[in-house]
Amino acid sequence: MYKNYQIIIEYDGSRFVGWQIQKKRKSVQGEIQKVIKIVFGSSYKGILNGSGRTDAGVHALGQSANFFIAGGINLKNKEILSRWNFLLRKKGISLLSMKARNKSFNARHSAKERIYLYKIINRQSSLTLDKNQAWHVRKKLNIKAMTKGAKILVGTHDFSTYRASSCSAKSPIKTMNKISIKKQGRGKISLRFYSKSFLQNQVRSMVGCLKYLGEGKWDLSKFKKSLKSKKRSMCAPPAPAHGLYLEKVKY
Amino acid sequence: MYKNYQIIIEYDGSRFVGWQIQKKRKSVQGEIQKVIKIVFGSSYKGILNGSGRTDAGVHALGQSANFFIAGGINLKNKEILSRWNFLLRKKGISLLSMKARNKSFNARHSAKERIYLYKIINRQSSLTLDKNQAWHVRKKLNIKAMTKGAKILVGTHDFSTYRASSCSAKSPIKTMNKISIKKQGRGKISLRFYSKSFLQNQVRSMVGCLKYLGEGKWDLSKFKKSLKSKKRSMCAPPAPAHGLYLEKVKY
Repeated sequence: MYKNYQIIIEYDGSRFVGWQIQKKRKSVQGEIQKVIKIVFGSSYKGILNGSGRTDAGVHALGQSANFFIAGGINLKNKEILSRWNFLLRKKGISLLSMKARNKSFNARHSAKERIYLYKIINRQSSLTLDKNQAWHVRKKLNIKAMTKGAKILVGTHDFSTYRASSCSAKSPIKTMNKISIKKQGRGKISLRFYSKSFLQNQVRSMVGCLKYLGEGKWDLSKFKKSLKSKKRSMCAPPAPAHGLYLEKVKY
Repeated sequence: MYKNYQIIIEYDGSRFVGWQIQKKRKSVQGEIQKVIKIVFGSSYKGILNGSGRTDAGVHALGQSANFFIAGGINLKNKEILSRWNFLLRKKGISLLSMKARNKSFNARHSAKERIYLYKIINRQSSLTLDKNQAWHVRKKLNIKAMTKGAKILVGTHDFSTYRASSCSAKSPIKTMNKISIKKQGRGKISLRFYSKSFLQNQVRSMVGCLKYLGEGKWDLSKFKKSLKSKKRSMCAPPAPAHGLYLEKVKY
């Protein structure tokens, strides 16, 4: 009898080719599968379902995944999580928690909402401590203009403009539940995107367009036109991967 | 005629032996002096006064320093700061701003208050993104107990308990203006210490004692006794350097 478990994962995306396993290259999924196998060997069913594939360089504060173990795990034994974390400690991956789930739970298909966080640091001077963890934008950003743009993106739209050519989603139509843009101290700007699911490259593409708005390179009508065009060629250059975080997956 | 300039500096302390210049080893002061010389050559008076020496591994969000240039700098020329930052960009140092000051200004002696920030991440799982930028404490911390301890430290005291044997301050008596302890999401705890000046190792030693309180290893009377003893041997192990940030210097 296989039992189903969910884990919540934090990782430093700068050290991986992305979530998805690849031959001979370091992926988050691959590294986690290795340590599950060390502890459970053939009891591990051999599938680690991630809530979604994060691209190379993209970080996670709360990636979610599930897997099956024959006979189940004694969850009172906190040792398992700390043993896995010990094995992962130098890899930039940390398992935050583990939970038993019913058989039908699937980290990808059961998700009700995903939250992506995008971090910008808006200042002249180069970055030090946040170097691989935020997008450094030198030109002064107009947050009010960006917030107006974000409002346009909320709701159900055909998001083809923001979709990578390699995206495998059946439909480009998605519903953006909410976008928040917060200015913190020292030039820090946090953008959060709430949706059931996203197209490949969607967040980074939207952030790229919002940045054009903030810089004054685009006005609001140009921004609207870009969304309405449904053409990839009408998108601003996507924001870099190292500012993006999969923050949370809700079920 | 020499003119006096103040710069505000951010750095990733994990890459240096500390602020102070040392022969053959990488210091923040040494790296900044190099780039000032590249631009100003012999016009640079050859003294870069830091507001204080940060130890190896200690970071800065707002270190302050001053220096003299014969004939002065044309401050309208923003190029100088960006040229320095270009030269420093791979070193983990960034100059945030520059300001003309009167002759008597001294980044160290003119300081009215220094603010140190100490970051703790309180959780079981190992750290990834914050690895060299916060202290990882596994045992659950009682913030209320730590806040009570912090209150005891506020005011004028003989802080000998928290003083490194190598400290060169004339007196161990200092006045702690304020301490704040804030719990943020995901196990993040920020401690801030406000004082005109600090003894060597004082913040890290105080944080070490506050952590003992938070873990329940010490009660409040033991904590008080440690302060009152004025004995280094009565101090808890100091918190590691990589959680400490010189946040701001006020004049």
